[in-house]
Amino acid sequence: MAEVTNRVERWGRFELGLDGPQVGNPFMDVHFGAVFSYGHRQVEVAGFYDGEGRYVVRFMPDVIGAWSYRTCSSASELDGVEGAFECVAPSEGNHGPVGVRDTFHFAYADGEIYYPVGTTCYVWNHQGDELEAETLRTLAEAPFNKMRMCLFPKHYRFNANEPEFFPFERKGEGWDWERFDPAYFCHLESLVDALSELGIEADLILFHPYDRWGFAGMAAEVDDRYLRYIVARLSSFRNVWWSMANEFDLMRAKTEADWDRYFRIVQESDPYHHLRSVHNCRGFYDHSRPWVTHQSIQHRLPERTAEWRQLYGKPVVIDETQYEGNIPLQWGNIPPQEMVRKFWEGTVRGGYVGHGETYLHPDDILWWSKGGTLHGGSPARIAFLRGIIEDGPAIGLDPVSGVMGYRFPCAAKGDDYFLAYCSIMQPAETELHLPEAKQYAIDIIDTWEMTIVTLEGVYSGDVEIKLPGKPYVAVRARAV
Amino acid sequence: MAEVTNRVERWGRFELGLDGPQVGNPFMDVHFGAVFSYGHRQVEVAGFYDGEGRYVVRFMPDVIGAWSYRTCSSASELDGVEGAFECVAPSEGNHGPVGVRDTFHFAYADGEIYYPVGTTCYVWNHQGDELEAETLRTLAEAPFNKMRMCLFPKHYRFNANEPEFFPFERKGEGWDWERFDPAYFCHLESLVDALSELGIEADLILFHPYDRWGFAGMAAEVDDRYLRYIVARLSSFRNVWWSMANEFDLMRAKTEADWDRYFRIVQESDPYHHLRSVHNCRGFYDHSRPWVTHQSIQHRLPERTAEWRQLYGKPVVIDETQYEGNIPLQWGNIPPQEMVRKFWEGTVRGGYVGHGETYLHPDDILWWSKGGTLHGGSPARIAFLRGIIEDGPAIGLDPVSGVMGYRFPCAAKGDDYFLAYCSIMQPAETELHLPEAKQYAIDIIDTWEMTIVTLEGVYSGDVEIKLPGKPYVAVRARAV
Repeated sequence: MAEVTNRVERWGRFELGLDGPQVGNPFMDVHFGAVFSYGHRQVEVAGFYDGEGRYVVRFMPDVIGAWSYRTCSSASELDGVEGAFECVAPSEGNHGPVGVRDTFHFAYADGEIYYPVGTTCYVWNHQGDELEAETLRTLAEAPFNKMRMCLFPKHYRFNANEPEFFPFERKGEGWDWERFDPAYFCHLESLVDALSELGIEADLILFHPYDRWGFAGMAAEVDDRYLRYIVARLSSFRNVWWSMANEFDLMRAKTEADWDRYFRIVQESDPYHHLRSVHNCRGFYDHSRPWVTHQSIQHRLPERTAEWRQLYGKPVVIDETQYEGNIPLQWGNIPPQEMVRKFWEGTVRGGYVGHGETYLHPDDILWWSKGGTLHGGSPARIAFLRGIIEDGPAIGLDPVSGVMGYRFPCAAKGDDYFLAYCSIMQPAETELHLPEAKQYAIDIIDTWEMTIVTLEGVYSGDVEIKLPGKPYVAVRARAV
Repeated sequence: MAEVTNRVERWGRFELGLDGPQVGNPFMDVHFGAVFSYGHRQVEVAGFYDGEGRYVVRFMPDVIGAWSYRTCSSASELDGVEGAFECVAPSEGNHGPVGVRDTFHFAYADGEIYYPVGTTCYVWNHQGDELEAETLRTLAEAPFNKMRMCLFPKHYRFNANEPEFFPFERKGEGWDWERFDPAYFCHLESLVDALSELGIEADLILFHPYDRWGFAGMAAEVDDRYLRYIVARLSSFRNVWWSMANEFDLMRAKTEADWDRYFRIVQESDPYHHLRSVHNCRGFYDHSRPWVTHQSIQHRLPERTAEWRQLYGKPVVIDETQYEGNIPLQWGNIPPQEMVRKFWEGTVRGGYVGHGETYLHPDDILWWSKGGTLHGGSPARIAFLRGIIEDGPAIGLDPVSGVMGYRFPCAAKGDDYFLAYCSIMQPAETELHLPEAKQYAIDIIDTWEMTIVTLEGVYSGDVEIKLPGKPYVAVRARAV
């Protein structure tokens, strides 16, 4: 008995559910999938067992028009089921999945530019309905359009609570590594969809080292089966990114070959080629490998963004560069000014910086891990920066030199747009070396006070301008 | 006709002036000096020609008691003049010249500890009586006990004014490289003495690259004669330090061998072995050479102090680490908070940091170069830091690790005293790992607000303490 949708929007999700065998262990014993066809084009997609005799295959069509499908399975009652659906125009706000654009930047599949403004709530999805709803309410008002989040629960300081859901079925004191728990995945999927509703990409962290349950040290075949199951369930969600790990280099049990293999499995299994990365603690994974789509970096110095761009020739996303907060741990107590400064340092060098927040909380609800509400001073300024970037030229900025001497970093779009940043320095005046062929309006931006003052007149070539003589000032020049 | 003083205090200045030949060029033609004797000990000292037929030899006695002297000269009327004087106890505030103590620190000759708290007014001594007097009035109220200053005048942005005095006599459009101008030196000496009155060491910069008069490119024999003349005139001033250069590596005409030679000439000529250093722009001179007494460093990262201590095994004095100010030049526009932070970063790693200030001024009177008055926010906080250090154990601090985890740098004196610094971070609590054998009083220091709050009770071993949760906090633990 097929349950199907007859109309699916472009980059929406088609889902076919069939009842099939429950004997033995369907997770291991039954192969199930489908081939989706549009004209002569065929896309082979893995399905998955969803428990209680239910077999599901999902598909994200990328072309408007008539699609058909035919299942294939090792179980005869699941094999050869055929059907069709109509792919229609996407609804408002659905721009498709994000991909790399122009080497160092990102765009949605429909061509709309995507400027990542990320935050991290590692295990907000393991905190129960009430807090998860609060996190979503906070996100609805926050400037973030990407969320880093872990699939496995987290064991760490401030993270002692036991989660409700686990990806594997319990077996005695441990886990049945051959049986997934569909309840965990249904819950996860509902949250990924909720993020999508808010226009937020879900940067899903597939492995991490903060573990007391055994998920950081599973056997290789369990790792691989887990990855394939995840991809089968979630790759049809348009807002999914695959992050192989958080701090992969702290996972002692895994080798470089393991990480290469995880990447390849995800790459082979995902028909849509969602973005793929891996996040370091200390040394970087070799981001030049072909399966890495962008650099997901932890580093204290976003000032090095231009260097990393050059090194790997891929977008630089600094997902972690210390967090605004006041906890004793050394990475979690920078003031809001410093968090905002790091965003600007990375931005004017052609990269994308991520936010995190770690203020002590009586119930250990720190945004960085559990979500909840934001307490810090940086999100408002990050929203201000996001507005400036979105108000700028339609494709990402690239670093240039010499615009404010060699002193201050500057991003540009051709010779139409320049955005320089004075960081903590407080010059009361500066030279600007603008192209002579065009005339520019100049704005003085106080990135902390969130003010923009446009200078009178237009400017060209070498000019001297006054500045406020205080920290955190940026200068924007736009061709008129 | 000898003019002599019969009583000289220890580390004071004995001066003998004799009239002699004026024919030819006495600077070049006449050798003059004296041997000073205390018991069987003899100290040979070079004299100098002071113009208008006057020959002078100066001496700084270091032992209380009866001293005698005998001149020697190539001019018969200056040769063999004998005399004696009594060296008496030093007056209050006279602790003798400063030397290195305990590898990384400094002390006066009488054993009193000297903690360098430097500032820089490169050519305050070339600004005319009125401004020079203002600078001295400012210094009398300021926290500084070392002044970096250039002997030659300075040509640079904000430094267009022509000085009144030059070390050489004019000759046509240029200089007579064989004749010094005593008026220049008298003026300089009066200012060095004025600094001494204020308890300020004069870190005299013998060469520098900011030049429009030809002093940066003199012939080697002129360089050498200039050095010997300077040392003959000034080595008897107890507060003199010899800095071979500012930004030696920007003086393209000079080779490494030149710098080695300058050091050796000064070392050979100075009977008192005043401190010797050379200051870099980019790469360091090899501070391990035997004639270098301490590291005079320009670097943006005082966080590297401990590394430099280990590298060269000599005191680290970071004379320049950007300046508080608002000028457009990249090294001169950090906010006061950052200047103070750099002082603390260096201090808690066992080094000594120097101050500079570059605020735009309608008449180009920037403290960094011309002196005048201070306008910034850092001197008050530097005074606060100096008070804390002087209030600490009687010999300099050395870096230790692990006292506030590996997170925060900490200086210590044995197990009696710890001073850790949180920099811009704003933890609201921290662990402290104190020795278990002693009990400690703990102070929370707000280095910007200049407050010290002593926690109730005494502490030992591993303890958790609350912190204000704001930037620029230090923690001090003192054994009770």
